[in-house]
Amino acid sequence: MENNPEFKSLIVQDGIEQPDSVDNHSVQRFLQKKRKLLLVDDYVNGIRECNITILSQAVTLVESSRPEHHQIAQEIISRCLPFSGESIRVGITGVPGAGKSTFIEALGSHITRQGGKLAVLAIDPSSERSKGSILGDKTRMEELSTDKHAYIRPSPSAGSLGGVARKTRETIILCEAAGFDHIFIETVGVGQSETAVHSMSDFFLLLMLAGAGDELQGIKRGIMEMADLIAINKADGNNIEKAQMASRQYKNALHLFPKKESGWEPQVLTCSAIKKTGITEIWSEIEKYKKRTMNNKYFSQQRNAQSIFWMHETIQEQMKRAFYQHPAMKKDLKEFEQLVLKNNLSPFIAAGKLLDRYSRLIH
Amino acid sequence: MENNPEFKSLIVQDGIEQPDSVDNHSVQRFLQKKRKLLLVDDYVNGIRECNITILSQAVTLVESSRPEHHQIAQEIISRCLPFSGESIRVGITGVPGAGKSTFIEALGSHITRQGGKLAVLAIDPSSERSKGSILGDKTRMEELSTDKHAYIRPSPSAGSLGGVARKTRETIILCEAAGFDHIFIETVGVGQSETAVHSMSDFFLLLMLAGAGDELQGIKRGIMEMADLIAINKADGNNIEKAQMASRQYKNALHLFPKKESGWEPQVLTCSAIKKTGITEIWSEIEKYKKRTMNNKYFSQQRNAQSIFWMHETIQEQMKRAFYQHPAMKKDLKEFEQLVLKNNLSPFIAAGKLLDRYSRLIH
Repeated sequence: MENNPEFKSLIVQDGIEQPDSVDNHSVQRFLQKKRKLLLVDDYVNGIRECNITILSQAVTLVESSRPEHHQIAQEIISRCLPFSGESIRVGITGVPGAGKSTFIEALGSHITRQGGKLAVLAIDPSSERSKGSILGDKTRMEELSTDKHAYIRPSPSAGSLGGVARKTRETIILCEAAGFDHIFIETVGVGQSETAVHSMSDFFLLLMLAGAGDELQGIKRGIMEMADLIAINKADGNNIEKAQMASRQYKNALHLFPKKESGWEPQVLTCSAIKKTGITEIWSEIEKYKKRTMNNKYFSQQRNAQSIFWMHETIQEQMKRAFYQHPAMKKDLKEFEQLVLKNNLSPFIAAGKLLDRYSRLIH
Repeated sequence: MENNPEFKSLIVQDGIEQPDSVDNHSVQRFLQKKRKLLLVDDYVNGIRECNITILSQAVTLVESSRPEHHQIAQEIISRCLPFSGESIRVGITGVPGAGKSTFIEALGSHITRQGGKLAVLAIDPSSERSKGSILGDKTRMEELSTDKHAYIRPSPSAGSLGGVARKTRETIILCEAAGFDHIFIETVGVGQSETAVHSMSDFFLLLMLAGAGDELQGIKRGIMEMADLIAINKADGNNIEKAQMASRQYKNALHLFPKKESGWEPQVLTCSAIKKTGITEIWSEIEKYKKRTMNNKYFSQQRNAQSIFWMHETIQEQMKRAFYQHPAMKKDLKEFEQLVLKNNLSPFIAAGKLLDRYSRLIH
């Protein structure tokens, strides 16, 4: 290596002396490459030391749509991967109005008081429209946002559900490498983002209110079916009895669902996030779940299945993106849509022709 | 053209005389090509004359997985496309036991008695497993199966939901070109095939039973939401009152759903397919729907949206298939799954590497 003149002079260059025997372009490339490697090191070291500023910058790279950021982000993730995984990942959903922020604040503070480190992430593909309703405003969680054992990160703002979900899942890896051993992934209880959250959580918690049937709360049956625990919030004051009645109803409803693969029987508990009652009980159920599913191996089996799932999701998402974002295809798609609408081509033949064109383009 | 010796001698060859100045290979290719074109013509003419044997053979080509069949099928569909579209497409779902066959028989016979021509198709991606439970046995519809104005075709048997759905949608085009102006697309009321049926229907009918909550009937909320009409079957004998009560409950439930884009308010009606009561009323609602949505343009807007949807579905389905069925990728996928499971690679980086390999392979 030292005999390579280019390499040698570059080392000198790095030691301030100006090289005059190598062309400028090579120098720049080498420096760029070197600087990038240093950056990746800086990020990884910062993350491992739980430097929140550096962690946040790394997450910003993960969320960036610029290819050069994507490249660095992937390197950082690769390096953090061996330090990830040591955590419990809790998915939390519930319709707006169920008191999710207050609940997360109460449960989160309970965790950090016990010495846990908590990262609160979110998946909300619509947050661009709703101007970041989820965690967009950290003041919604006053206590946690000043807690140095908690890290709150709003949902990546733009993009498809697949893209947003991928970014959140990559952020989990960084947070775990930074030593956060409790991960909350929050979502609003409408649409398909619950499925995405469920596919990256160990435990799935559904927050409900007393008094309203699940129809009225807009929670889909499929979401109830995913729940490992239903917490009925706002069980305080005059509301306690109603909450207990709702609890019994949900318990009955859960009995109708098929038994879970985890062997875990979903629980229904009441709580008041604002009065901080029932929070300890909820957390101890989650701990019980973790212990039990680690014993019966379901915990790691589920994580493995989730990893494979995300590999395939990413493959499909990226193939789709490459096709639809190809400038020539964008033009062709418009043209073929018109042909299909005029009944000049069947949708299937149009698809075939578009794929032929695409395959010629990328060859 | 006539000066082209190859072409000339081939014309002679077609008139029985043997060519001796051209090589055998060209002759065979030409004849093959010629024969195929004749075949496509034969199919299209047969379909246009509503020759059921030829229609069935064409549908078999549509369902075939052999590339040469696929090729001919696409040509036939292209040629039939201008004659398609003049119909009402009714999606019909309901759990097993709701009496779907008897209901289709009753409603279908009502249509053919009024001079309509009816094709009954099905989507059941699981039919390979269940040995063709849907329409697999035409004797389930004794009256319709001997009705010369009705054509019953079981679900394409094998393949993914996307593949099965595509085949059914292509079959609709052929049936319409054959003059069938009423298309029923049947599915079982579980799983995701309802969404596929909905995406190719003008009107979506859900068949239910009295006495059981929708939880017990396994119908998902999302399916109820798609319904333009809920028919409560077996409203006969001692069951009439129960059916009427269920009807009121479903009416109430439907009120909770958001208003439909079509402007149509979903109806709930009772019927007895076996006693043939309530059938006329159901059909007249469907006709009312058609009239109204044709007036407010929703009918054609929805069909357009469906065509575009199917174009994109097909693109994505075929990209996925090409990737996953590539022999080299099958091997690579196994290897990378292991790396992901051992936490040596993140699912996202594994996906990126697999896509790189794939892209080098197909270049």
